Amino acid sequence: MSSVLTVEVVVIGAGVAGLKTAHDLLNDPKSKLSSSQVIVLEAQDRIGGRIKTDCTSSKLGYSYDLGAAWFHDTLSNEVLKEAIEDNDISLFNVEEDTYYDDKDAQLYAPEHEGPLDVVGLKLNRVNEDLEKFIELYFVESLSIPDLSLQDVSERFFIQYDRLLTEDQKFYCRRIIRHYELWYGITWDKISGKYSIMDHNGRNLLNKKGYQFLIEKLQRGIPNDRILTNHAVKKIDRTNKVNGKKVAIETTNGQSIYCNYVVVTVPQSILQLKESDAHGIQWVPPLPPNVTSALESIHFGALGKVIFEFDNVWWDPNEDRFDILADETIGIVPFEHLKSLPVPFSYPAFIINFASIHKDNNPKGSSLCIFTQSPLTDYLESHKNEAWTYFKPMLAKLARSGQKVSDPINVITSDWTQNPYVRGSYSALYTNDDPSELIIQLSGEFDGCGILDKNIRFAGEHTISDGAGCVHGAFASGKREAAWIIENIHST
Amino acid sequence: MSSVLTVEVVVIGAGVAGLKTAHDLLNDPKSKLSSSQVIVLEAQDRIGGRIKTDCTSSKLGYSYDLGAAWFHDTLSNEVLKEAIEDNDISLFNVEEDTYYDDKDAQLYAPEHEGPLDVVGLKLNRVNEDLEKFIELYFVESLSIPDLSLQDVSERFFIQYDRLLTEDQKFYCRRIIRHYELWYGITWDKISGKYSIMDHNGRNLLNKKGYQFLIEKLQRGIPNDRILTNHAVKKIDRTNKVNGKKVAIETTNGQSIYCNYVVVTVPQSILQLKESDAHGIQWVPPLPPNVTSALESIHFGALGKVIFEFDNVWWDPNEDRFDILADETIGIVPFEHLKSLPVPFSYPAFIINFASIHKDNNPKGSSLCIFTQSPLTDYLESHKNEAWTYFKPMLAKLARSGQKVSDPINVITSDWTQNPYVRGSYSALYTNDDPSELIIQLSGEFDGCGILDKNIRFAGEHTISDGAGCVHGAFASGKREAAWIIENIHST
Repeated sequence: MSSVLTVEVVVIGAGVAGLKTAHDLLNDPKSKLSSSQVIVLEAQDRIGGRIKTDCTSSKLGYSYDLGAAWFHDTLSNEVLKEAIEDNDISLFNVEEDTYYDDKDAQLYAPEHEGPLDVVGLKLNRVNEDLEKFIELYFVESLSIPDLSLQDVSERFFIQYDRLLTEDQKFYCRRIIRHYELWYGITWDKISGKYSIMDHNGRNLLNKKGYQFLIEKLQRGIPNDRILTNHAVKKIDRTNKVNGKKVAIETTNGQSIYCNYVVVTVPQSILQLKESDAHGIQWVPPLPPNVTSALESIHFGALGKVIFEFDNVWWDPNEDRFDILADETIGIVPFEHLKSLPVPFSYPAFIINFASIHKDNNPKGSSLCIFTQSPLTDYLESHKNEAWTYFKPMLAKLARSGQKVSDPINVITSDWTQNPYVRGSYSALYTNDDPSELIIQLSGEFDGCGILDKNIRFAGEHTISDGAGCVHGAFASGKREAAWIIENIHST
Repeated sequence: MSSVLTVEVVVIGAGVAGLKTAHDLLNDPKSKLSSSQVIVLEAQDRIGGRIKTDCTSSKLGYSYDLGAAWFHDTLSNEVLKEAIEDNDISLFNVEEDTYYDDKDAQLYAPEHEGPLDVVGLKLNRVNEDLEKFIELYFVESLSIPDLSLQDVSERFFIQYDRLLTEDQKFYCRRIIRHYELWYGITWDKISGKYSIMDHNGRNLLNKKGYQFLIEKLQRGIPNDRILTNHAVKKIDRTNKVNGKKVAIETTNGQSIYCNYVVVTVPQSILQLKESDAHGIQWVPPLPPNVTSALESIHFGALGKVIFEFDNVWWDPNEDRFDILADETIGIVPFEHLKSLPVPFSYPAFIINFASIHKDNNPKGSSLCIFTQSPLTDYLESHKNEAWTYFKPMLAKLARSGQKVSDPINVITSDWTQNPYVRGSYSALYTNDDPSELIIQLSGEFDGCGILDKNIRFAGEHTISDGAGCVHGAFASGKREAAWIIENIHST
């Protein structure tokens, strides 16, 4: 392929958002674009972005989604709805390839033997009340200053002290930290104001792996229209040559000229300065409304550590385990996590593959532990220390008479170590604003974003419904393809 | 007392709303009214309205609230907040006189021995999804026609058929009927559109009884300012005599002249025609906007049946039991319930006094069963048939090796039989409108209600926050007292 390419549309990034954009541009009956007019540039040597189904690392024959793993908001999830309607069981069998892994979680505390009596102590009731309290606290007035999840929670325990038991206060103070395993950051950082979310339905685990969606989208895009190992280093919208409005350069020397660009790189990449490694140079620079919006939100680092065992020494009938942190340890700030923290420093959330695959279990099984930043960053770069950290915590799960065995295999995600991803997804720190970036990048608000409307954005960080999720990224790609098709028609 | 009275303010009804109005008129430091200027007219021979703490019927020494029994919305409940702040433990001891009776309910089905495995079958997860589905179904567009709770639920089970197990479909179709024991009407009548409610916090059972609140309010009102057995039959706002704008007549021949009236009679009484027994004659008649709003909402009949036993043959550690209906029986329409229905015709919700009083239990204990219309109407007028109906249902609760014994005492509510109450509280039938009556009666919307602004309304049916609840009635009384104090100041 020549080092100069001329097309109509360049899609930057071959994750769900980018692939969905290209797919629709090439398959929507209303589109006039031929495949030669669309190109997808992908920085990495693989496509899929933050969807990464690992089918080869397991010694048990499992496949693991190291990135996105659930269908969220299943009452309004377009990706799930299409999978049901497609009814293409060779690609994805909705009945067999999914599992609602949402049986009430077993809860363990460092100072307590065996699971806590969550029902008897009414810990879920108190936690529901705490969450409602937080919601109401910030609803009171729009001008109430944000507080961290940790600080706003403490106000509840002070105010309702007389109506709660000692056990409820002791445990529920820490149970609320389960949000760390949603946002990928610790509760001293999580925005209390935006911590409690409403969901459109249950979460449905994708047992087979999200790779099916990448394959499905890829089927609508000729192979030669996706260029991997093509990291964009410059987007010049002052271009005057080749009859195109925009010139794009990649780090491997490719120049591409086009009229439309759909930028689907992660928020974490947009947040890099042009001088940073892997930063993108914008000509002219991104306007202040966009750069300021990029400063109003953070990026989390939800990670996964999977231990495979040759025997199941924990309860194979439970979907999930929550292990509370030892709150006396306190939170080790990010910059100080230079060595392995002591076990129980952070709460852990664990999904149980023995339950997920209970109808079809090999001899052993595995536990998949979710981690938050800064633990994610540490373990993703020190994989061989993961078992040392988690062994005393997982020992809580051992059934009576069962001995914890060492894993036969350790698999971890590597998102923080991947220079093209740098974490998991958008996360709201205290005082962050969840809507500003979406307003600037969704293309749906006049006078916002880049005023050259031929520069578009897609991805989980550019959309409100499904923010941070596969179906959000998917919908944002659909949105941009539709906009370009409509815009080409009308020009 | 003379048969002609002249005052400034007449409060009609000595329930929470009326007593709170009178209390604030006489105790608010901003009020200029002396006690001789305020009178409360109560139709019944007792005060309290739909608060009725029965301290005498029990053979076990318990007190039972036959009307309102919980603090609802406890994160924003003004009555509870005041009780905490008062800290007057001789009147009400918040720590000892309340109990969060919200441990996960044990669930029983007619065709199943012992409690259902709610956790293992994930029935609560499916029910949460169903409730969210209903919410989203009607949020889709404001113009979507209402459906009964029964009909909208069925749409969920059709749409998500492939993702649910047979057990989940079988049981969850009936679990959603628990709303019958909230609204006091059956699910074929309940408005689907307004069935799913958001609450500001847990429900806290008032163990001691709500009588404390009546006593508290009563302390601020001289005894002679409340006239019981004074049922109002006429409100004439064309009055020209005695220098007052309004003349009121009671069925026992009392005439009262005043400038302000606060009407706190139940919605069910306002809905009576002037020609009906216990109806109120309005001169001039209520305007069409008010009468039409009164036709846009119904009145439910939540009832209670309490069985006392001299031994505890059920589990004393469970707070609540839910017994599902046998759906093959179908729903017996109201007009046909001329004889006792077969057991399991309606779902039952039961609170367990053995658990509520577990630290201080007499030899036996009691179960309090909630009933919905039309069962409430039937059992409140055929109290001696209650055990025949419930015995086979309660037998589900017997612990292994324990024999169900006959009750030593049966206590029922009598709200449907009380001509001054006629049921429990506002209930939304399919196609009803929850806001119209509040708009007309709350006094907060210009051009609504009665244009003579000196005629005010209060009660659970006149307020949005706390509708149907004690704290709503309380807040509505507070609202009207504040309005009158302000209005008198400014005239």
